[in-house]
Amino acid sequence: MTTAVLSDKKMKTFEEIESAVRSYSRGWPTIFEKAKGYKMWDTDGKEYIDFFAGAGALNYGHNDEAMQEKLIEYIKNDGILHSLDMGTNPRKEFLERFKEVILKPRDLDYKIMFPGPTGTNTVESALKIARKVTGRDSVISFTNAFHGMTIGSLSVTANSFKRHGAGVPLHHTVSMPFDDYVEDQSSIAYLEKFLEDSGSGVALPAAIILETVQGEGGMNAARLDWVKQIESICKRWDILLIIDDVQAGCGRTGTFFSFEPAGINPDIVCLSKSIGGAGLPMAITLIKPEYDQWEPGEHNGTFRGNNLAFIAATEALTNWETDDLSKAIQEKASILSDAIKGWVKNYPALKGEARGRGLMQGIAIEGEGIADEICAEAFNRGLIVETSGPNDEVVKFLPPLIIDNDGLKKGLQILEDSIKQVLAK
Amino acid sequence: MTTAVLSDKKMKTFEEIESAVRSYSRGWPTIFEKAKGYKMWDTDGKEYIDFFAGAGALNYGHNDEAMQEKLIEYIKNDGILHSLDMGTNPRKEFLERFKEVILKPRDLDYKIMFPGPTGTNTVESALKIARKVTGRDSVISFTNAFHGMTIGSLSVTANSFKRHGAGVPLHHTVSMPFDDYVEDQSSIAYLEKFLEDSGSGVALPAAIILETVQGEGGMNAARLDWVKQIESICKRWDILLIIDDVQAGCGRTGTFFSFEPAGINPDIVCLSKSIGGAGLPMAITLIKPEYDQWEPGEHNGTFRGNNLAFIAATEALTNWETDDLSKAIQEKASILSDAIKGWVKNYPALKGEARGRGLMQGIAIEGEGIADEICAEAFNRGLIVETSGPNDEVVKFLPPLIIDNDGLKKGLQILEDSIKQVLAK
Amino acid sequence: MTTAVLSDKKMKTFEEIESAVRSYSRGWPTIFEKAKGYKMWDTDGKEYIDFFAGAGALNYGHNDEAMQEKLIEYIKNDGILHSLDMGTNPRKEFLERFKEVILKPRDLDYKIMFPGPTGTNTVESALKIARKVTGRDSVISFTNAFHGMTIGSLSVTANSFKRHGAGVPLHHTVSMPFDDYVEDQSSIAYLEKFLEDSGSGVALPAAIILETVQGEGGMNAARLDWVKQIESICKRWDILLIIDDVQAGCGRTGTFFSFEPAGINPDIVCLSKSIGGAGLPMAITLIKPEYDQWEPGEHNGTFRGNNLAFIAATEALTNWETDDLSKAIQEKASILSDAIKGWVKNYPALKGEARGRGLMQGIAIEGEGIADEICAEAFNRGLIVETSGPNDEVVKFLPPLIIDNDGLKKGLQILEDSIKQVLAK
Amino acid sequence: MTTAVLSDKKMKTFEEIESAVRSYSRGWPTIFEKAKGYKMWDTDGKEYIDFFAGAGALNYGHNDEAMQEKLIEYIKNDGILHSLDMGTNPRKEFLERFKEVILKPRDLDYKIMFPGPTGTNTVESALKIARKVTGRDSVISFTNAFHGMTIGSLSVTANSFKRHGAGVPLHHTVSMPFDDYVEDQSSIAYLEKFLEDSGSGVALPAAIILETVQGEGGMNAARLDWVKQIESICKRWDILLIIDDVQAGCGRTGTFFSFEPAGINPDIVCLSKSIGGAGLPMAITLIKPEYDQWEPGEHNGTFRGNNLAFIAATEALTNWETDDLSKAIQEKASILSDAIKGWVKNYPALKGEARGRGLMQGIAIEGEGIADEICAEAFNRGLIVETSGPNDEVVKFLPPLIIDNDGLKKGLQILEDSIKQVLAK
Repeated sequence: MTTAVLSDKKMKTFEEIESAVRSYSRGWPTIFEKAKGYKMWDTDGKEYIDFFAGAGALNYGHNDEAMQEKLIEYIKNDGILHSLDMGTNPRKEFLERFKEVILKPRDLDYKIMFPGPTGTNTVESALKIARKVTGRDSVISFTNAFHGMTIGSLSVTANSFKRHGAGVPLHHTVSMPFDDYVEDQSSIAYLEKFLEDSGSGVALPAAIILETVQGEGGMNAARLDWVKQIESICKRWDILLIIDDVQAGCGRTGTFFSFEPAGINPDIVCLSKSIGGAGLPMAITLIKPEYDQWEPGEHNGTFRGNNLAFIAATEALTNWETDDLSKAIQEKASILSDAIKGWVKNYPALKGEARGRGLMQGIAIEGEGIADEICAEAFNRGLIVETSGPNDEVVKFLPPLIIDNDGLKKGLQILEDSIKQVLAK
Repeated sequence: MTTAVLSDKKMKTFEEIESAVRSYSRGWPTIFEKAKGYKMWDTDGKEYIDFFAGAGALNYGHNDEAMQEKLIEYIKNDGILHSLDMGTNPRKEFLERFKEVILKPRDLDYKIMFPGPTGTNTVESALKIARKVTGRDSVISFTNAFHGMTIGSLSVTANSFKRHGAGVPLHHTVSMPFDDYVEDQSSIAYLEKFLEDSGSGVALPAAIILETVQGEGGMNAARLDWVKQIESICKRWDILLIIDDVQAGCGRTGTFFSFEPAGINPDIVCLSKSIGGAGLPMAITLIKPEYDQWEPGEHNGTFRGNNLAFIAATEALTNWETDDLSKAIQEKASILSDAIKGWVKNYPALKGEARGRGLMQGIAIEGEGIADEICAEAFNRGLIVETSGPNDEVVKFLPPLIIDNDGLKKGLQILEDSIKQVLAK
Repeated sequence: MTTAVLSDKKMKTFEEIESAVRSYSRGWPTIFEKAKGYKMWDTDGKEYIDFFAGAGALNYGHNDEAMQEKLIEYIKNDGILHSLDMGTNPRKEFLERFKEVILKPRDLDYKIMFPGPTGTNTVESALKIARKVTGRDSVISFTNAFHGMTIGSLSVTANSFKRHGAGVPLHHTVSMPFDDYVEDQSSIAYLEKFLEDSGSGVALPAAIILETVQGEGGMNAARLDWVKQIESICKRWDILLIIDDVQAGCGRTGTFFSFEPAGINPDIVCLSKSIGGAGLPMAITLIKPEYDQWEPGEHNGTFRGNNLAFIAATEALTNWETDDLSKAIQEKASILSDAIKGWVKNYPALKGEARGRGLMQGIAIEGEGIADEICAEAFNRGLIVETSGPNDEVVKFLPPLIIDNDGLKKGLQILEDSIKQVLAK
Repeated sequence: MTTAVLSDKKMKTFEEIESAVRSYSRGWPTIFEKAKGYKMWDTDGKEYIDFFAGAGALNYGHNDEAMQEKLIEYIKNDGILHSLDMGTNPRKEFLERFKEVILKPRDLDYKIMFPGPTGTNTVESALKIARKVTGRDSVISFTNAFHGMTIGSLSVTANSFKRHGAGVPLHHTVSMPFDDYVEDQSSIAYLEKFLEDSGSGVALPAAIILETVQGEGGMNAARLDWVKQIESICKRWDILLIIDDVQAGCGRTGTFFSFEPAGINPDIVCLSKSIGGAGLPMAITLIKPEYDQWEPGEHNGTFRGNNLAFIAATEALTNWETDDLSKAIQEKASILSDAIKGWVKNYPALKGEARGRGLMQGIAIEGEGIADEICAEAFNRGLIVETSGPNDEVVKFLPPLIIDNDGLKKGLQILEDSIKQVLAK
């Protein structure tokens, strides 16, 4: 009661001045002040374990010391902060390191585009270049896909609430069933039939855009074999394959790119969120050289040269010089996975279902509002975790990749306590 | 010759690894290292006067000392860098200070939305909410408008090269003539007739979106009276008026908002670029409270909580506590304006025309490629200045607002020398 | 009163069984039984003078004797009535006669397409082929244009009530001002500026579609010089010129094609309504041979082979073997024009304005509903005449071209009596 | 050889004057002169059995004597031929008789709309009213659907060649799998999942438009149970069900409406083709009274009052006063069905598959071009029969419903002879 009153006072500024569109400050009604690694503290000094990681933008945790030092040094030296797509040292170093550390060892050959600093910018750029290169206008996306909130990206986003928010009908896209979408039905057979039949009503698309693990859509992990089949379909019909790795990339599933274990070689890859290292706005679009058919300036934007982000991004790449991080993620993914399976088994009232892959997992829970209640309870107990899925029915675990086993287990314990509490009501 | 070779080597990384879409690194083929106030230096130690200001994102100049200190302090203290739309101190302070320093003294009442950190994000959010509030789908924009590169913003952008880049037809918009578009014809009469005649073929729009001074479109400044008439038209037909002040706002024309001298009260205002103070990615959408009809999360994005930008943005607001900056801008605007008029008069071969308002002015030059040649020559001589307009025919002056008279005059001298050089060929 | 009750009974079937969309049976609440030349009779034996001519589909009047004979003969002989686009004698004869009597003497060279039997079919086919030939998607149409009610044609129709009826936003079209649309403004200057400026926001269109005299739009006759200028614009930018002569063609304005006196040579011409001779459903699309790039069957339809219509159409062409009909139309057009000018002058309360050309004229009347009242009164007095224009503000005169002077004058007298009656209220 | 030369001469007019879009006159290169019942004769006196029936517009055969008499009588009496939607006796009689003979006995309650005389007109009107009534913009149609060639109808037509001909992207529609579309996959399960999942990317549509038997799409007959399930889905989600019975209606499948045996009650029904009795252009849209929410004139067209068609249409209704026609169709359907099954069995080289229902059947044949060759051979032997399906792989049988057993068998013999001849090559 007292807490509620205090909290109200605390959030007054947001309630009175900020737009009604604000969202996280409603579910987590406090003011966050400090953060380090996998921990956050609010202005009351309360500590939180972070299983949210900036919606996947903080894979390397909060305020990595090496990054902090480099950022401070750059600022102190009057380094150029904002540079559009002019040449700067941080941009140059990022390009070189990304090629050296990420692309070369994976035998990948891409041109790197800076499309503006957000996830939706990279998706819009990917759709544009795919349409230009193929001369086709439509794009196939999948059920429960999330690609962004600007009109181009929204047109390949599946959620009806978000689509409706466009205020205009969304065109030039076709929604096809994601892996395992309809029980006992093959989404591959369905897609193939629509593409091979000239009477299907579905035109040959410029591209297929795919998240290998759908985050907002409910932590749905496509089987690797299914992903491989989608690549085959793309090759068979000369369709460009765009992997939107904005949330699942940068190590989230255990490899730098989420698609590595599927053994595919996408034509275009979208990266944002954790590519900026420290949570600073940045995005890149990777394009096979033969498809990099842009005219200079054909897609642009003011904040393509966020040098602080380049610095943190370059520092973050050191994590990928060895296999250590990958192995550690896989180890922690097992712990997470075991915990989720345990809850599914031990709390049958949840009618739970384990979802996801790597450190991108979730538990789908039947019963309207239960998942939200669990997250609210977890917040009270000092764990930051949110829901996803079309009906917010999935508790979504996105801990920073650098979380230690201790932190991970503590967080999981809070979550289990929260489940018990909610089920006890 | 030698320079060219060196330059080639220097830019190798960008040419080989970065996408062909890169643009500024072609026109200014060097690597920038440091910047302070209105000056920039490249890795060879060459100094440049900056008449570009990050395409308007650096109104307060590079690396303002007070901003630097606050940024460094925040990073040192493990302040939370990335927070989506969670509550944080920097977000809270920005909201309060913006209301106090900007809105209240101007008798403006807006809810503040963080729509994602780029100009195109704020425009997309403005279009969405206007369509939602009115239940109408079309939007009227103007000839030579530039509002952004994602599909929603691009649909209200006029440039055919940029529109073509969409790869899909752009809908739900109508392009109307900007002030003084067709010689001896009244664009107001034209617009009114299309709106009042139910047989015009143009539906009642959700909104009219307007830049009071078109930057990318060629430094076209609408007469204040014309802007006022557009507002009247919006009121008469119950159309929402969106002012896109992304480039012309934040003091660029001499007042914080570009529309202040016109005495209008827009329904929605889009701000980005210099709102972030130091060139860090940030944007806000101002919405009259009665139109702030968003559902929570109806528009979102990962980088809505760039706390470093909030800190610099809040510091930048101190510039607006008194009239001093405004007066200084107007003074420098006169110097700039006099210089341009002088060139128009003294170099008739340019067939020049003075354009713009405040520190957002330009000189339109007949003769294909001349404006570009002048900018290239200026770069060689140590001045950063670019072109705009549908055919890159306008040399565009966007010095930082904090430039001193000396710096301004030096830059203008370089420009004049460049004109002479180009005309002498 | 008694009449009203009787009328109600008479119309019961339509009111009870037919859809609410019915329209003419509301304004003219009677059952028509017979018709000959310019006269119609209802089931009560009441005679009407027809100044409506099936909305322009009965230029040759009702039940021309020669046509009747040929139709009956064909039916009696078991002639094939319905033939899609198979070869039949009536189709062959129509093709040959149309080329001989209409195209050759006017030095016009077109391929003749049968696009389905209605006006909207020919317009849809014209838009399709123009888009195919040019590879462009947008089409410029004009304010107050009417081209049909299917989605393609509706997209180039200007009336907001009709457009709204589409239930979907209408795309790929731009509405430009018709001749004399905005007072003291040159619509040609606007159009040219939008086309020549790559920053106008209006893409180079596949075609411009134009009615030289707008019937539904309010009997607006473009000046011949303006029409000529539109053709020049099309040539300058390589845009196809489509003349929609569905209502203004087949002699309505005094020449077979309405555009003849302008001396232009359109790329595509749409004909329907009176092309069928006796009011039987028929339409043709005339396409310059170089643009006749259809694949077989790329546009089709079940009723492209209405042989009864071909027979009447061929018979109707005899009217064009000499200049006699043209001259007679021009003579009667003068009588009509003089009458309208007289009313404008003698009944200043009408605030009337003369509109139109040939036997396609009207009087625009200020004051909401007045024009409708005049038409209602005229109906009571035995004259069939309707309104047009965005607000039904124009009384529209479309007598059959074969009306004699006596009939014309009688009709005009009834109209004048109706004006008096309405003004006397 | 000689024949070819003669034929060339004969078709010269069409080749030289008519547009390249002509289609049937290529496959059947002759000039048809007379027709009676199920027989046609060309100008050389050659007799043909008609298994095409005007693509389904001549269900009652050619030149029914009673119809001929009534048509001639009406013309002789100066009956009004063209009346838009004014009241006329033939219109009144048709409305009353249709209600009496067709609707009442089937316990159906519809308002009757005259949307213009072609199939595409009725479909466009159905889509419009469905969108208006529901306030939704999208419509679900099915793979291999054919609904017409104007932009609205084309947007729900599946064939890629026809869609491509639009010249613009087609919007506001989603293509779902028809019954039995993907082997071993349930199209009902897909549709339900897409509708029930708010994250499917498919919005709740205004309507589902369905042919119970797809003619152009390849004679695909949906199982009656599947049709019933579609109706249930429509009811469950408050979606309007539009049955496009343009080709399958008017008795073609054995009942007046094709959907009668499925026991459904569609919200809107589209009829054209044979509704005009004698092949004269006519169409109606049947709308449940509660959905007949048109404003007067909200959809219109010049040829909605084709009185000759109304007269033949009314006469045709006499066929439905008893069950005799229905029974006769079913009997003949068995003969047809047995023949097709026999060919499938006896000519395994065809890899044939029997398709369709009632007198709307076909045989799908593997091997590119074989079906076309069979039809060409049949033409030489005096049988008019065409192909359908996305790759013209189905020989399509649409004999007039009034064909006698003798005629049917003769035609089937010619077809079998043609199969033998083609296979012998």
